[in-house]
Amino acid sequence: MPLQMEIPALQRFLEREFPQVAADFHLEEVTEDRLILGLRVAERHLRPGGTVSGPTMFGLADVAMYLAILSHLGPVALAVTTNCSIDFLRKPEAGSDLRAEARLLKLGRSLAVGDVLLFSQGVAAPVARAGLTYSIPPKR
Amino acid sequence: MPLQMEIPALQRFLEREFPQVAADFHLEEVTEDRLILGLRVAERHLRPGGTVSGPTMFGLADVAMYLAILSHLGPVALAVTTNCSIDFLRKPEAGSDLRAEARLLKLGRSLAVGDVLLFSQGVAAPVARAGLTYSIPPKR
Amino acid sequence: MPLQMEIPALQRFLEREFPQVAADFHLEEVTEDRLILGLRVAERHLRPGGTVSGPTMFGLADVAMYLAILSHLGPVALAVTTNCSIDFLRKPEAGSDLRAEARLLKLGRSLAVGDVLLFSQGVAAPVARAGLTYSIPPKR
Amino acid sequence: MPLQMEIPALQRFLEREFPQVAADFHLEEVTEDRLILGLRVAERHLRPGGTVSGPTMFGLADVAMYLAILSHLGPVALAVTTNCSIDFLRKPEAGSDLRAEARLLKLGRSLAVGDVLLFSQGVAAPVARAGLTYSIPPKR
Repeated sequence: MPLQMEIPALQRFLEREFPQVAADFHLEEVTEDRLILGLRVAERHLRPGGTVSGPTMFGLADVAMYLAILSHLGPVALAVTTNCSIDFLRKPEAGSDLRAEARLLKLGRSLAVGDVLLFSQGVAAPVARAGLTYSIPPKR
Repeated sequence: MPLQMEIPALQRFLEREFPQVAADFHLEEVTEDRLILGLRVAERHLRPGGTVSGPTMFGLADVAMYLAILSHLGPVALAVTTNCSIDFLRKPEAGSDLRAEARLLKLGRSLAVGDVLLFSQGVAAPVARAGLTYSIPPKR
Repeated sequence: MPLQMEIPALQRFLEREFPQVAADFHLEEVTEDRLILGLRVAERHLRPGGTVSGPTMFGLADVAMYLAILSHLGPVALAVTTNCSIDFLRKPEAGSDLRAEARLLKLGRSLAVGDVLLFSQGVAAPVARAGLTYSIPPKR
Repeated sequence: MPLQMEIPALQRFLEREFPQVAADFHLEEVTEDRLILGLRVAERHLRPGGTVSGPTMFGLADVAMYLAILSHLGPVALAVTTNCSIDFLRKPEAGSDLRAEARLLKLGRSLAVGDVLLFSQGVAAPVARAGLTYSIPPKR
């Protein structure tokens, strides 16, 4: 599975398609085997007590896997999330950015499946893991 | 499982503990068997194209089940989401509010499990379904 | 979604396609809204202690949803399970048969999604719940 | 997390607690980071067409993660599977044994969480992946 899009193209895609949130994310690594996406944690990502909210972690895992699919398929395809099973393992560190490590396990004609580990920056044990499935529309 | 909290107490709990988002939600029904929670969809819940974002749907399901647990346990307990498996079934209607119907399937000493259906207002087929698990801390 | 197959046709399908296990199952109800499938629990379904094993519960949920899809699609299509998220809620009663209640939440062109509750006969609280997704191959 | 049980102790545990199925499994590797468990595929694990059945794959993932937990906790604890989310990625090779690679992501006081990849022997791409959660009873 050679890459169809590398970091600059993926970053531009994010900025064009998701202008409201693109500045939150920064791509750290994109290879055939995995994609690492950072989230700059801001006030709106937090819940009372200062830890990152569940919807924010869900969203980070979803964007990371979406970009991993695009890196292999190119910008034409429009993948749609059909399932996400996420385990919350530990409270994220208050005031720390998050990092998602995504790997694609299957890229079929109609379905793509992968999993993601989420980390607080500087902590070895993951804060969450997710398995995600995407439906890939037929080529026109 | 008689109710420990009804709509007014749950609404006050939301406003006290989650002041940033409490105004988005309104409780429609709370019985022993199910809890119905509405989401007033606003600009920040949308993604390009005008449909409600995945993280917003995840968050609505999570809050609905959390309140269903509180309605049975009372405000003392602090439940923590440990797993959510969510299936996205259809695109929500653009410009429509969402409604979550949550039912508690198990309320054990250390775990609570339930599932949620999400609907666009006025449409019979669900837009998503989720199964959620919460860890309930031991009583002090 | 009018039914394409009713109980006798589904039972014959089971006997033809899954001759090793068909005798374990009996269809109790098939309507547009739900399908109820019973499992006659035998020695090989048990684990030490006498309760029904996890793989047996998984298999029952899978067969129930598969038949629910066939009841709507007819025997031509060959659906493949792509995801199952199952919550084990309570130990099944030793020596009791199990019952699965399946409902189809989405029957799309390429994906079908539904959920299942599993019960020990004669007990009101469910022993497990599962959400399942199937890939439906394109028509030839 | 130093190991409490290594391969011989785990194998004896399997034979004592699960005598009906212990001969199907063989432990290939147990380290602090992962556990590899092989399944000797036999007639009863197959479905029509010769591929390994879904319940068999579920069971293999479950046993592998269960043993990974025991390797860290020792034989005293009795962990109970509470959730499994499994993605079926590809048909297993007919006539090939399966291999499960399990890693423990969290070992808390009351919950353990991990994930598993399943492979057909000799094929690089996984046939399934699963995330599993176990409830760990309080120490007596």
